[in-house]
Amino acid sequence: MSSESMIPFVFAVPVTAEKPSLQDNTADLDRLRHAFRAILPDTRPLEIPFARIVVLCRRFRQAGFSGVALVNDLPERWVLADFLPEMPSTLPAMALDLGTTHLEATLVDLLTGRILSSAGCENSQIEYGADILSRIHQATNIRRQKREIDFSFIDPGLAVLQQSIVACINTLTAELVADCGVETGEIRALSVSGNTTMTHLLLGLDPFHICREPYIPMVNGVEPMESRELGLILHGAAPVWIMPSIGSYFGGDLISGILASGMAASEQTRMLIDVGTNAEVVLGNQDWLIACAGAAGPALEGGVARMGMRAAPGAIEYVSIDPETYALEVKTIGGVPARGLCGSGLIDLVASLYLARIIDIRGKFRDPARENDPARAAFMRQRLVMRDGQPSFVVVAARDGDDDEVLLEQIDLDAMIRSKAAMYAVLATLVNQVGLAFVDLTEICVAGAFGNHINPQQAITLGMLPDLDLSVYRAIGNSSLRGAEQVLLARSARQECLDIVSKITYVELNVNQEFMIRFSGARFIPHTDPSLFPSVPLFAEQKE
Amino acid sequence: MSSESMIPFVFAVPVTAEKPSLQDNTADLDRLRHAFRAILPDTRPLEIPFARIVVLCRRFRQAGFSGVALVNDLPERWVLADFLPEMPSTLPAMALDLGTTHLEATLVDLLTGRILSSAGCENSQIEYGADILSRIHQATNIRRQKREIDFSFIDPGLAVLQQSIVACINTLTAELVADCGVETGEIRALSVSGNTTMTHLLLGLDPFHICREPYIPMVNGVEPMESRELGLILHGAAPVWIMPSIGSYFGGDLISGILASGMAASEQTRMLIDVGTNAEVVLGNQDWLIACAGAAGPALEGGVARMGMRAAPGAIEYVSIDPETYALEVKTIGGVPARGLCGSGLIDLVASLYLARIIDIRGKFRDPARENDPARAAFMRQRLVMRDGQPSFVVVAARDGDDDEVLLEQIDLDAMIRSKAAMYAVLATLVNQVGLAFVDLTEICVAGAFGNHINPQQAITLGMLPDLDLSVYRAIGNSSLRGAEQVLLARSARQECLDIVSKITYVELNVNQEFMIRFSGARFIPHTDPSLFPSVPLFAEQKE
Repeated sequence: MSSESMIPFVFAVPVTAEKPSLQDNTADLDRLRHAFRAILPDTRPLEIPFARIVVLCRRFRQAGFSGVALVNDLPERWVLADFLPEMPSTLPAMALDLGTTHLEATLVDLLTGRILSSAGCENSQIEYGADILSRIHQATNIRRQKREIDFSFIDPGLAVLQQSIVACINTLTAELVADCGVETGEIRALSVSGNTTMTHLLLGLDPFHICREPYIPMVNGVEPMESRELGLILHGAAPVWIMPSIGSYFGGDLISGILASGMAASEQTRMLIDVGTNAEVVLGNQDWLIACAGAAGPALEGGVARMGMRAAPGAIEYVSIDPETYALEVKTIGGVPARGLCGSGLIDLVASLYLARIIDIRGKFRDPARENDPARAAFMRQRLVMRDGQPSFVVVAARDGDDDEVLLEQIDLDAMIRSKAAMYAVLATLVNQVGLAFVDLTEICVAGAFGNHINPQQAITLGMLPDLDLSVYRAIGNSSLRGAEQVLLARSARQECLDIVSKITYVELNVNQEFMIRFSGARFIPHTDPSLFPSVPLFAEQKE
Repeated sequence: MSSESMIPFVFAVPVTAEKPSLQDNTADLDRLRHAFRAILPDTRPLEIPFARIVVLCRRFRQAGFSGVALVNDLPERWVLADFLPEMPSTLPAMALDLGTTHLEATLVDLLTGRILSSAGCENSQIEYGADILSRIHQATNIRRQKREIDFSFIDPGLAVLQQSIVACINTLTAELVADCGVETGEIRALSVSGNTTMTHLLLGLDPFHICREPYIPMVNGVEPMESRELGLILHGAAPVWIMPSIGSYFGGDLISGILASGMAASEQTRMLIDVGTNAEVVLGNQDWLIACAGAAGPALEGGVARMGMRAAPGAIEYVSIDPETYALEVKTIGGVPARGLCGSGLIDLVASLYLARIIDIRGKFRDPARENDPARAAFMRQRLVMRDGQPSFVVVAARDGDDDEVLLEQIDLDAMIRSKAAMYAVLATLVNQVGLAFVDLTEICVAGAFGNHINPQQAITLGMLPDLDLSVYRAIGNSSLRGAEQVLLARSARQECLDIVSKITYVELNVNQEFMIRFSGARFIPHTDPSLFPSVPLFAEQKE
């Protein structure tokens, strides 16, 4: 171990003991314990789980009382987990982002920090409900149907959902090791970043009160448990680190993101924006953290708009409309035929529609009949159609079974404007709560697929993100997974998670008067006060 | 809790928390943890086992966030085990003396210290061997027969023996609760005193090296485990306290006896004698303890002499021979027809034979033909017979299917003399090792059935026990079981066990020159140096 703060979740350390003799008839376990205790850097209690005693003692003896101990570094104690005859070539551990719709995982070598492989899959619980609320209800329904079953440990409804996600993780684990010469049983640790409900469902804990006032989770933080206690196919004694949550709507995935952003370890003040089903925003530095979550996300993530979809192959991620020629260009993820719009594509599209003056500052389609510019009027006549009694913009026309038709309907546009308004109002309110302005921020980290694909300039044009120099914005990718990797690799990261939880202040914006006022002002493009967005062009109607 | 040192192994404590609200949306588990932490008397880590989280949180909620927590007081941490709506009327725990041949148990109420019931049974492992060595060999043989089975956790041979003793304990548990209105699943803790091998066999640990030089047990001390990890039918989360051992031949049963004797907590120096398969002797006080074990026991316990038997119904426990009339009187345990001689009966018999001058100072039957006293000669002719070519004494004659014939053969008498010599040599050597004399001892505690039945005066006559005032001797009964009860009831007793282990010095007498010299001197009745036994009458042959 180079330094204590760099101790991985599980580490391998050489241990050599004197051989037994008539002069030294110490019991095997004590012999191992003493030799091991002597090399530990601190006096925290050393636990040897009862179920590990036989295998530890036998391997210690077989190795001639000299070999390599595998040790779990838990917050309040050391756990002696295994004994090997020699130093292994790798020490694989798994980091898991446990999303509501999607799982992403990497295999990390704890000896070198190297990523050995990565994989992802759909969350199999989708079978029981696309979103969290419907899964909680489903668990309750299954419970009602199986009332005769013993409730003492785990509800049958919960058991079904728990077994589903465990099977899903096990399948993902098998995929993860497939090409790197590792057996699943050789994975010695797991870290999991998930929202509060997904964490409850994985652990078999009742999420029933999460979605009912006053919104109380069963747990926010749990001590690491052993993999076998969850039914995972990793090594049975592999410790499982569950990222702690702050509350029902502020989960371990975001704590992981805060960790990965580095904001909680920095003197400078940063902001983290994570857009998923909710938009979660955190502001702070090493001294303080303030956070909020709101339902700004759906339209942006692509979950609500009729043509919305996740950032996946076939999703339009880029749109441009030439304001002179009205040439419309789209790019899809993977370059395959378009199937829908992901969040970044939607932002591009709406910003382009605004700059090309196809929509007005309220986000309403303008009337081609009242358009003076002939080129624009022609474009509008070509692209604006009435569907189901409302104006819609044809992003991609249907052509002989090649592309699907991709439409942007007025109703989706309205949802998008509400979302962007909510997002800006959240950011502005949060910054104002601590007496800062946007210009005081060193960095704005944008997490997830959204952050990877979004064009900040277009988001600024819409008035969704503050009008700052583009260098302030940084896409940090799947920060939930990155944080999970970090806790596997360093004790300082594990400690930082616990520190973040104790340091963070959560602001409830749904009942915040300032937020409501700011939300109203932000329901225009870019804003009712255009001076907040000097880089966005002003058109005649605003100058009036 | 009146005082920390009096905290039972499991205790019940009222816990009341604020109810959740929008202003206080702490998670259920944290709410419970905080309310509980606030009433704990120290800052040791608080563990909530993963498997208990669901049931704890649910019961906490069902009880309206107010009720009674059940807490396990483990050496290095608190464990929150259960939550009840109200204070229970009893909190049953089981104390178990896990003997090689016999199990004894009591049910203790941890709220009051009251003994609720007691029971005993034969050790079911006797099916696999009467003694420890044959059971170890049996485990190895079963292992060889089942070589194809995975060895990773527990050997099949060990598994058979472990399941046997667990089933035996479960049967005993059911018997224990039968008449006191308690369910087995309501027993909240267990303490076990056993020798080192029996402890290994209960825990499924390999005893293979215990009986092979250099005689290394797999473990001496283990952290308490949960009852469910052993397959017991107590409450699954009941912690199991295993009395620590010192080595292969100095087990937890003796640590328990030291605890029960009170010697390790006293300023005055005491001696503890525990005669079982081995004779184990401990000497010391609160500052130091010295101990040894030797094979002095068999003849005394009744395991070796042909007519020997355990102290059980039908065992002759008392013998007297009137030195004037030569009237021979015997009493059996339970007053039933005689079946054999237990240790105390054997001591009585041999001492009486000596005082009646039927045997000489070497422990040899005297020749009736050379006897001058007519009454004695008549008695000898009546009672001394030749069997299998050696002289034997008829203790009880066979009579028409009533009593069995009970004989004392010369070979058994010789074994008895060796045993008593070994015992005295052990005691004398041990006392001399620390520079003391017998008169420095405040008390000599004699444990077990042996201690309950033995007549110290007769043992002194034989030269087995030192010639001290009889008030020095105290029978302390089943001290192994008494110690097991004490650790259930008080933290100070649990701590004392650990202190005893760290404080005790073990002396190996098999290779001790002084012991061998003292052994030779003690192979006469009472001793080659009769001045050591002033209360024992001297006869002509010694005066010469």
